[in-house]
Amino acid sequence: MKRNFITTSEWSKNELQSILDFASELKANRIQPLLKNKSIALIFFNPSLRTKTSFQIGMNQLGGNAVIISPGQDAWPIEFDVGKIMNEEAEEHIAEVAKVLSKYCDLIAVRAFPKFQNIKEDIEDKIIRGFEKFASVPIINMETITHPCQELAHILSLQEQLGDLKNKNYLLTWTYHPKALNTAVANSSLIIASKFGMNVTLLCPTEDYLLHDKYIDEAKLNCQENNTNFTISHDIKKSYANKDIVYAKSWGSIPFYGEPNKEKKIRDQYKNFIVDERKMNFTNNALFSHCLPLRRNIKATDAVMDSDNCIAIQEAENRMHVQKSLLFNLLKE
Amino acid sequence: MKRNFITTSEWSKNELQSILDFASELKANRIQPLLKNKSIALIFFNPSLRTKTSFQIGMNQLGGNAVIISPGQDAWPIEFDVGKIMNEEAEEHIAEVAKVLSKYCDLIAVRAFPKFQNIKEDIEDKIIRGFEKFASVPIINMETITHPCQELAHILSLQEQLGDLKNKNYLLTWTYHPKALNTAVANSSLIIASKFGMNVTLLCPTEDYLLHDKYIDEAKLNCQENNTNFTISHDIKKSYANKDIVYAKSWGSIPFYGEPNKEKKIRDQYKNFIVDERKMNFTNNALFSHCLPLRRNIKATDAVMDSDNCIAIQEAENRMHVQKSLLFNLLKE
Amino acid sequence: MKRNFITTSEWSKNELQSILDFASELKANRIQPLLKNKSIALIFFNPSLRTKTSFQIGMNQLGGNAVIISPGQDAWPIEFDVGKIMNEEAEEHIAEVAKVLSKYCDLIAVRAFPKFQNIKEDIEDKIIRGFEKFASVPIINMETITHPCQELAHILSLQEQLGDLKNKNYLLTWTYHPKALNTAVANSSLIIASKFGMNVTLLCPTEDYLLHDKYIDEAKLNCQENNTNFTISHDIKKSYANKDIVYAKSWGSIPFYGEPNKEKKIRDQYKNFIVDERKMNFTNNALFSHCLPLRRNIKATDAVMDSDNCIAIQEAENRMHVQKSLLFNLLKE
Repeated sequence: MKRNFITTSEWSKNELQSILDFASELKANRIQPLLKNKSIALIFFNPSLRTKTSFQIGMNQLGGNAVIISPGQDAWPIEFDVGKIMNEEAEEHIAEVAKVLSKYCDLIAVRAFPKFQNIKEDIEDKIIRGFEKFASVPIINMETITHPCQELAHILSLQEQLGDLKNKNYLLTWTYHPKALNTAVANSSLIIASKFGMNVTLLCPTEDYLLHDKYIDEAKLNCQENNTNFTISHDIKKSYANKDIVYAKSWGSIPFYGEPNKEKKIRDQYKNFIVDERKMNFTNNALFSHCLPLRRNIKATDAVMDSDNCIAIQEAENRMHVQKSLLFNLLKE
Repeated sequence: MKRNFITTSEWSKNELQSILDFASELKANRIQPLLKNKSIALIFFNPSLRTKTSFQIGMNQLGGNAVIISPGQDAWPIEFDVGKIMNEEAEEHIAEVAKVLSKYCDLIAVRAFPKFQNIKEDIEDKIIRGFEKFASVPIINMETITHPCQELAHILSLQEQLGDLKNKNYLLTWTYHPKALNTAVANSSLIIASKFGMNVTLLCPTEDYLLHDKYIDEAKLNCQENNTNFTISHDIKKSYANKDIVYAKSWGSIPFYGEPNKEKKIRDQYKNFIVDERKMNFTNNALFSHCLPLRRNIKATDAVMDSDNCIAIQEAENRMHVQKSLLFNLLKE
Repeated sequence: MKRNFITTSEWSKNELQSILDFASELKANRIQPLLKNKSIALIFFNPSLRTKTSFQIGMNQLGGNAVIISPGQDAWPIEFDVGKIMNEEAEEHIAEVAKVLSKYCDLIAVRAFPKFQNIKEDIEDKIIRGFEKFASVPIINMETITHPCQELAHILSLQEQLGDLKNKNYLLTWTYHPKALNTAVANSSLIIASKFGMNVTLLCPTEDYLLHDKYIDEAKLNCQENNTNFTISHDIKKSYANKDIVYAKSWGSIPFYGEPNKEKKIRDQYKNFIVDERKMNFTNNALFSHCLPLRRNIKATDAVMDSDNCIAIQEAENRMHVQKSLLFNLLKE
């Protein structure tokens, strides 16, 4: 039966762990023609470096191939509302796009960032859910309102470094960035860290920078089930104290959704949230990571990025291995 | 000897039927390394979803590969006039482009929509004829002033549904669309439906929306040879009556070529040309199809698109199979 | 040990000759799975036709594959300065880009044209040197301030036509072009022609169009070592006289770097530098070549381009063969 990978919330921890375990095997032995003659479509509504490259090369190492589609750039703009009279920009409907691509290829992967104008619409994840609804082949999320492939790479890297993650102390810290970025990787961080049994702290400047309840509630529930702690804090020093892992990400304020100029004035007050050596010294010699791309000396200092504790490159490499494992999981007969 | 696929007018019905027959074999058995180590170049002067994806994946299933080139975007703008002093935008001449690509790859496929400013220039099909003139490898038309790959997919789908097409009653209907689109698929529809022995009706709002004589005359000649009828009508009800097939397409008015604003006022009067259930009820339980992309509830209603009689997805799927068959036909030793 | 191909100055003539010799073998026998399962990344900061196509198809013929990355278009803008506070456009640093790509692929090829605003910065070749510094896989230059892959293709074509190049008389002539182009191929021409033992003449309208000392000095030194002549001239007739090879290229004036409008007035006086039959008649029945793209009847006349002495297409074809040989040289165990 067709299975989609749209959010890790729809997969059990055991299922995810078996994808991670097979990723380790593929990392040790990269060239295996497990998906010979399979073709997948990678649909990018937004830019990509790691994702595009790791999926394309990963498929090639598995004996298959990947084609790239960029709607609105090299392909037609697409309508996602059902029943719409299509008299605006979109030249075709997701119904046709998803059904036709399902005839050509074996799997569709989609990157569609939140538009950051209406939180309800973003939470609905309309674009990838449109593909899910109309496609007859499996769908992979390459980052929408969450980034589940990054979650897998993040956990694999932490397990490689620390072994069992149960009861490790995990910090997700907001960092400064000149623009209001989407919350996908932050949402993902809370969900997956809590799911894998860690004590999770969310550090952000004020209540304006809390993530959406949907993800906080899910993380709290995971922590409850795992008998771990979930903490929200605005105190930098207390939050870093005694941590085993520091994961950094910048995101825009949800109460100021759609008002980037107003929000800019607020966020510009919190440049001090940069991850630096002083803060890392409060931790339990913590590992540091970030999903990349990262602005050096804005989100984290050169010293932190270049330290032995930084595993951002390892996490980026693992994107390829977990995605290959995931592709095999979804496409094997 | 090198053979090109620029228009089906240069191929006999029997030759086309043998491409269609082999397409059915490839549809039943997709993975066949018939073009192992062959490389083709796909040159896009305009956007594409189905064409790009189906050619790339199709070549891969045949054991070969396809590279994408987008002149003016990721490659240099090209000059097509011979003898020109090249002091404008173009950085290189079709002579060099076609000759060099012929050294790298085994076949060149070209998408170059009419510019819709000068009908004579568009009819000349200067871009693809430039490739034909200077390339030493076969050329495939991926849509210019006609769309012969779509023709093959259209006929294969109709044959799959109806068997022999001789004497079937075929309607090509103009539909509304907010912009003046090119006439390629409409031209192709008349040519191929008449060539395969159907009675062909062209329905459009007024004489302003007649297709160019070149294609109407060719369709009339085909009908004469096949002892079938060719009819032009502006009466919706009479045109739909007793039809076995309804093919829909929007196109701009030729007398208003190069004057989109003037034409817009006229076309906006004919929104009623949308294909809906009421009109389909006049037919002989006709199949409905469209080349896609299609604006739902503008060109055809949701009810028509989602009905069992709609074969647009089947036609889109068949693009891949007919193109693979065509590639094999042109590249086999 | 990892080796990079950033400039031919870092390779001996014997090493280059062995790449050329193996290129001839690959030209005779194109399909050889020497790089099976290898993947390379092609990074384009600028447009490309020949380079992109020849690398992609070349890798495919060797059994490997190539992925295309266009930073700032389909990927994030990149910072190349070390220690920078990244508060401008760049979303990530070359350190991360190069390290991550090194984890995914076996080799990175980079096209990054000079920005033509600051000669010192252009000469430093900061972008490709950034990749060299941070990548752990080999780097290939696909054109920066020099174009070493073009050099190889140029020399292979001349050797195919003339055999040993020792003491041949070689002219690099500036030509008119409406825009100020970069000096890469011109710099490369001087370096490689002198390295392979030819008498080299550089013809340009005035001292304003001399190439940068760095490349002139290197060419002079090569000529000294080879006991050949290096000549700078502004006299068209004398320069063409007795030449065996005429290589044409347009480039912008270095003293007017960053002032395109001022320079335009000067360059527009020298349209007569076009390569035409009259000038070619001064030569020793010379071969003519150009790296392409070329504006016909601006840089060279139709008559010259279409003559039997023009080997520009041959040189373009050889791009693929020398690059395949180079890839094998850098990636073989």
